[in-house]
Parts: sequence; structure tokens; C-alpha cells
Amino acid sequence: MQAVGLVVEYNPFHNGHFHHVQEAKRVTEAEVAIAVMSGQFLQRGEPALVDKWTRTKMALASGVDLVIELPYVYSTALAHNFAKGAITLLDAIGCSTFAFGSEQGSITPFLNTVELIESNRAQYDIFIQQAIKTGMSYPQALHYAYESLKLTYPNHYIDLSQPNNILGFHYIEAANALQSKMQAVTIQRIEAGYYDEVDYQKHIASATGIRKALSDGQDVSHFLPEKPYTLLCDWQAKHAKFMSWEVLWPLLKYAILRHTPEQLTAFADVQEGIENALIKHAKTSNTYTEFMMKLKSKRYTWTRLQRMLTHIYTGVTKEQLHAFDTPTYIRLLGMTENGQHYLSTYKKQIELPLISRVAAVKDAMLTLDIQATTMYAIGMQLFSPQKIDEDIKTPPIRV
Amino acid sequence: MQAVGLVVEYNPFHNGHFHHVQEAKRVTEAEVAIAVMSGQFLQRGEPALVDKWTRTKMALASGVDLVIELPYVYSTALAHNFAKGAITLLDAIGCSTFAFGSEQGSITPFLNTVELIESNRAQYDIFIQQAIKTGMSYPQALHYAYESLKLTYPNHYIDLSQPNNILGFHYIEAANALQSKMQAVTIQRIEAGYYDEVDYQKHIASATGIRKALSDGQDVSHFLPEKPYTLLCDWQAKHAKFMSWEVLWPLLKYAILRHTPEQLTAFADVQEGIENALIKHAKTSNTYTEFMMKLKSKRYTWTRLQRMLTHIYTGVTKEQLHAFDTPTYIRLLGMTENGQHYLSTYKKQIELPLISRVAAVKDAMLTLDIQATTMYAIGMQLFSPQKIDEDIKTPPIRV
Repeated sequence: MQAVGLVVEYNPFHNGHFHHVQEAKRVTEAEVAIAVMSGQFLQRGEPALVDKWTRTKMALASGVDLVIELPYVYSTALAHNFAKGAITLLDAIGCSTFAFGSEQGSITPFLNTVELIESNRAQYDIFIQQAIKTGMSYPQALHYAYESLKLTYPNHYIDLSQPNNILGFHYIEAANALQSKMQAVTIQRIEAGYYDEVDYQKHIASATGIRKALSDGQDVSHFLPEKPYTLLCDWQAKHAKFMSWEVLWPLLKYAILRHTPEQLTAFADVQEGIENALIKHAKTSNTYTEFMMKLKSKRYTWTRLQRMLTHIYTGVTKEQLHAFDTPTYIRLLGMTENGQHYLSTYKKQIELPLISRVAAVKDAMLTLDIQATTMYAIGMQLFSPQKIDEDIKTPPIRV
Repeated sequence: MQAVGLVVEYNPFHNGHFHHVQEAKRVTEAEVAIAVMSGQFLQRGEPALVDKWTRTKMALASGVDLVIELPYVYSTALAHNFAKGAITLLDAIGCSTFAFGSEQGSITPFLNTVELIESNRAQYDIFIQQAIKTGMSYPQALHYAYESLKLTYPNHYIDLSQPNNILGFHYIEAANALQSKMQAVTIQRIEAGYYDEVDYQKHIASATGIRKALSDGQDVSHFLPEKPYTLLCDWQAKHAKFMSWEVLWPLLKYAILRHTPEQLTAFADVQEGIENALIKHAKTSNTYTEFMMKLKSKRYTWTRLQRMLTHIYTGVTKEQLHAFDTPTYIRLLGMTENGQHYLSTYKKQIELPLISRVAAVKDAMLTLDIQATTMYAIGMQLFSPQKIDEDIKTPPIRV
């Protein structure tokens, strides 16, 4: 059985994701699709709209055969580390290919870009340093260095200002670093840009657009396959609200103000220099959005701020987060019969421990996943009765 | 002008307090009554029912001329340190007497008891050690040692199992340690034991009884002077609820679960060995009472647990709390014209800095008071719109 790996968040699962799963299986001729999915907190530094088990059910109903959890350490990291965690897990579980959505849509320019940068690392770093000396920000300097390299070695490259292209680039880079045998495939994203608002003329909207529509109380049935849509409706019927930073604001505010400025800088990703602004604006803001509008600046992008806030919210320190290099386990969130068949066939060739029952395992990286799940559940309790020990109590979903 | 000092919490101010203020002035013939009052968190490890400014107003309407804040460092401490902070401040502000309520009601047995223990400290400590070796708890051993000393040197002593006698004992002990010139006076408490429920046949009920009656929605007008009662009603009309641990439970629970067991032991008063129980029971408890019932044991009394929880809630660590010895300022919360006159007359003889505007002062001990006030306000925001920077913005009350 051949397996294709997908790196996903499914926040929530929509028609674009469905297209991606189907295309990935069709193009790679894989019999099994394995998704490595962010848990309760996501790469943009946000809590997921609905919890990881509900998103797992959405995936399993839509062509994915196995869902494994991307540990908190990677799911809340910058693209480089996010990709490293995800690709390492897909490689470890035996995928022969991995398929990612991109603006670019064909794989050669990705391979060219990775090759260009890897072969000219020294020159690339010189360009970056030059740019920083002129006063550019780090992202600007990366862009300058890349454009400079492209001029030196003309070829067909990707546009590295597109968010999904950036992720794809890092997936391939991570696979190379691992010397993985997995082959990279890209599926062109259709009909919706990453940040677009929903357009009811289309059947595909971005997850960002769908979340916005949901928070505005709009109907989103148009953009989700039937079963994921039902799961989303069930969640709303049960909990009345979706999870968001806005909902968590009372707790986040309390967490920020409970610390001295010095203590705040101990949390992962919190850059020295921002601690006083965090406290000052937390004191005067009644909503998360108000807080973020005050906090945002040229120096700190929205997602960078959100990642800091994620770690402050969950209480994860730099010391805790930086203790890790590579994933230490494969956590199963759910599987179809086909996925179970794959696992029982290849189990012995998988070198990382497969975890289906959390209670039995002592692992520092896993402890952070459990912690993040507890903190997510504590937030849920603000608006809906909720058990806390879900990670211990919830077995993998089987459909 | 002679001033009498009072050590108070006024949670809330009631007829028994009124009696105490009047009697203290009458017995000492003082023209000014100065109260050193716990701020937002109290000696039993609880948030005050209503904030410190409201309680200051209650006091100023009822015969107290000056209210100064007992810093958080002392207001949340064991009786010994609570007394040390309070008596040091009353001495510093120039009181010639201090008057405390007690079950005992006459001062000689207090002086005898302090003299007995201070003169026989070595023997007292031996008795304590003996008792601990037989398996007694520390409070039991203290009791045993005291009873043993009393047998050795028969005289008229106080009953040290009564809560207000214990406090009085520590006040006198603290005054002796300071070599203060203040004379101690005790006023007998009337008609209500510390833990009694309210009895509508009487006009005096304990603060504990009144708080319970309030939480049961009972009328308490019978037990409070008119103005404090009006202030209490105004608070209820404005905020709908009174402050309590039950109200703060969502935040306290989040604070506990946001930490590893090791991190929890860094907070002030958290004894090693309880950290896992804190986390375990926080996970499964829906209310503060449920949590405390699970946590309470022979080893950990209710108030001892509450002091730990206070520091976890406010985020104050052992390192922060143990950095202090003696009070470093006198914080004015409010004054009558008479109180202002006293201050302007004696200002130059007061050696500690008098603080009326917090914003202008940098002091580590004061920083904890501001922190506690911020954490109290954050809790208020769970049920009522509230500004955060009250300590900076609120000038002393003047009536």
C-alpha cells in the first residue's frame, strides 16, 4: 500500500481541502492518505475553531485515512520548524509521497528554489546580512537575498511571497535535510486566495474566509462537504460558540497581567522589548481585537504576536520549547478501516513509538500537547461544560 | 493629638467594628483613630468582599479618621508577620496606643502570656520539639508547649486557642520586638463569636456570619451601621455580586493548571508535596468549594490552603515575598478632616514615606500591592466592567 502524506490544520475542513485530498490521492495513485494535523493550537498562533477530535472526524469523513497530531512544539512554530516536524512524521510513518497545496501548482519551480538556496547558502547569507545592514527587517532581507540569487542564476522559481509557497518550500527543504525518500507533489490551490473573503458564487473559500463568515453568523454550508458541515453544526448546537482568541481574552489578559515584565520574557517566542507593551495594552483593552490593534507594529506582525500569546496562554516557556529537536512519537488521532489496515501492515517498520493511549506514555514533548489540550479545555469551560483530561481519556477516532 | 491604632480588615464593616472604634477612642481618650487595613486580599487568604476604597469609606463614616493600607506582604501572612507589619505601621505613624478586640477582654493576661513565652523561649522551644517528636502537628505542639509553660509558672494567662487572642498576642509581641512606646489596650468582643452565624436577636454578628448571610441573599441591615450598609447596597446595585473565591474560580483554576507541579512550588506559601493535589483536584472541580473540600486535609488547614491559593492567583513567588523584612512606606487610603489635621501636624515626625499618589513611587513592596489590586480588578471584570489601574488612579478618599 502506497501512502501520501498531507500537512493540514483543517480549521475547519472545507471544499478546498476535499479537493486537495482527492487530487493528492489521484496524482500520486496512493491508496492511503495520511494527514499530520496541528492539535488545539495552530501555526498562525491561534486556538483551533473546533477541537482536534472534531477536526479529525471531518478529515476521516472526507478521504483521509489516518490523522496523526503535529505536536504543539511544531504546530505553533515558524514555517521552518512547523515543516520539519510535519515532514519528519510523514517520513517516519512511511509515506512514499507528500502533497501540498500551493499558489504555484507545479513542483519543478519549488525544487529549483530549494536547490538554488541550498547550493548557494553562503552567498544567500551574505545577501541577507547586507540587507539587514541597510535597515531592512528580517523578512524583507530574506526577500532581497532571494531576489538577488534569482538574478544571479536565472531559472524558473516560485514566488516566495505567497504563504502556501513558503510552506511548500520548507516542506521540501525539510525532506532534503532528512534525506527522505518521499517524493514531493504540489496541488494547485483553486478559486480562493488565502486571505480572501468568502464568495458565494464559488464553492471554495479559504479557511480564513470561512472563519470570518462564521463569526459574522453567515451560512457557510456552501463551502464545506456535507459531513464536516454537519460536524460544525453539531459543535455549534452543543457549545453555542466557536473557540477563538476573543473567547479566551479574559484568561489571556489575566495570564499577561499575572506576570512581571521579566517573567513574561521567559515564555516561548516572547521577544525582549515587547513585555511592557503587552502589560500596558492588556490593562486597557476590553477585547482581544482591541488589544492586538494596539500591539501590532511594523516590528511585530500579527502572527508573530499571536505565537507569543499562544505560549503565554498555555504557559510554555522558552526553556521547555527549546529542549526539543525532532519528534519523539506518532500520536494517532483517528483512522478509517483502510488506515488501520495500513498501520497493522507497516507497524513494524515504523521506528517512532505509535501512541494511541496517552495515559500510558511519559514524554516531555507529549506533555506539552496534553498541556495545550488542557488549556484549550479550560478556555472552553468559559462558555460550555467541558471535561479537562480529554487527552488522557479520548482514544483515537475509528470510523 | 493622641492617636489610637487599630488593625482591621472590615470585611465588611459592621456594628461590632463600630463598637470597637468607639470603645478604643473612649478607653484611650484618643482624639484620632488610625486603622491599618488589609488591602484586596486578607489574612485568611481571601479576596475582600468589596474593594479597599469602599471599605475605607465605611471606616471613615464610622469614627475612623485615617485608613492606611497593610501591604499585601503582611495582609496575607501568618498571624506573626501580619502583626509585625501592622504594628510597625501604627508605631511609625505615631500612635500612642493600639487597641484590639479579643475574647479575653483585659490586657494583663496578654502581657503575662507574652512575658511567659518571651522569658522562657528556650524551654518553650524544647516543649515544642518534644511534642512534634510524638507526632503532633505544629499548632498542636504550640498548644502543648504553652500549656506546659503555664503549668510551670502559674499565673493568669489568655486562652491561646481563640483566634482574636492569638492576634492580640502577636500584636504585643511585635510591639515588644520594636521596643515601641505604644501602649496596648484590648476591647472585649461582644455578643458574637468569630465563626458564629448571624442571630437576628442581636445587633452584632461576626463578619464571617455576615458574609455567609450575604451569600445566602439574607438581609444584613440589622448588623451594619447605616452608612456602611448603604455602601454595601450601592456596591451590590453596581456590580450585582460580591467578590469571593467562588467568583474567581475560573481564573484560579486556569492559573493552577497553567503550571507544571514544579512551577507551582515557586509561589509563596506553596508547600512542597501539595502541588500534584492542586492540579489533580483543580481538573475535576467545578466550583471553588468542591475544590477545597477535596484539597482539605489534617495537614493543610483551610486558611493555610487559601494563603497558597492567594499567591498562586496573584502570581507572587516565594522569592518575591521573602525579599522583605519591615514595611517601607505608609500608604494612605483615606482620611477625615480630623485625620488630615493629624497628618499635617505630625508629618515631619513620621519616618516612613507617606504615599498618597502611587504612580510617583517605585517600591518593590508597593509593586505587590498594585499587583494584588490589578488581579482583584481582573477578577471583577468577570462580572462587572472595571478599570484595571485603580491603584495608580485612585487618590486617598477624603471626607
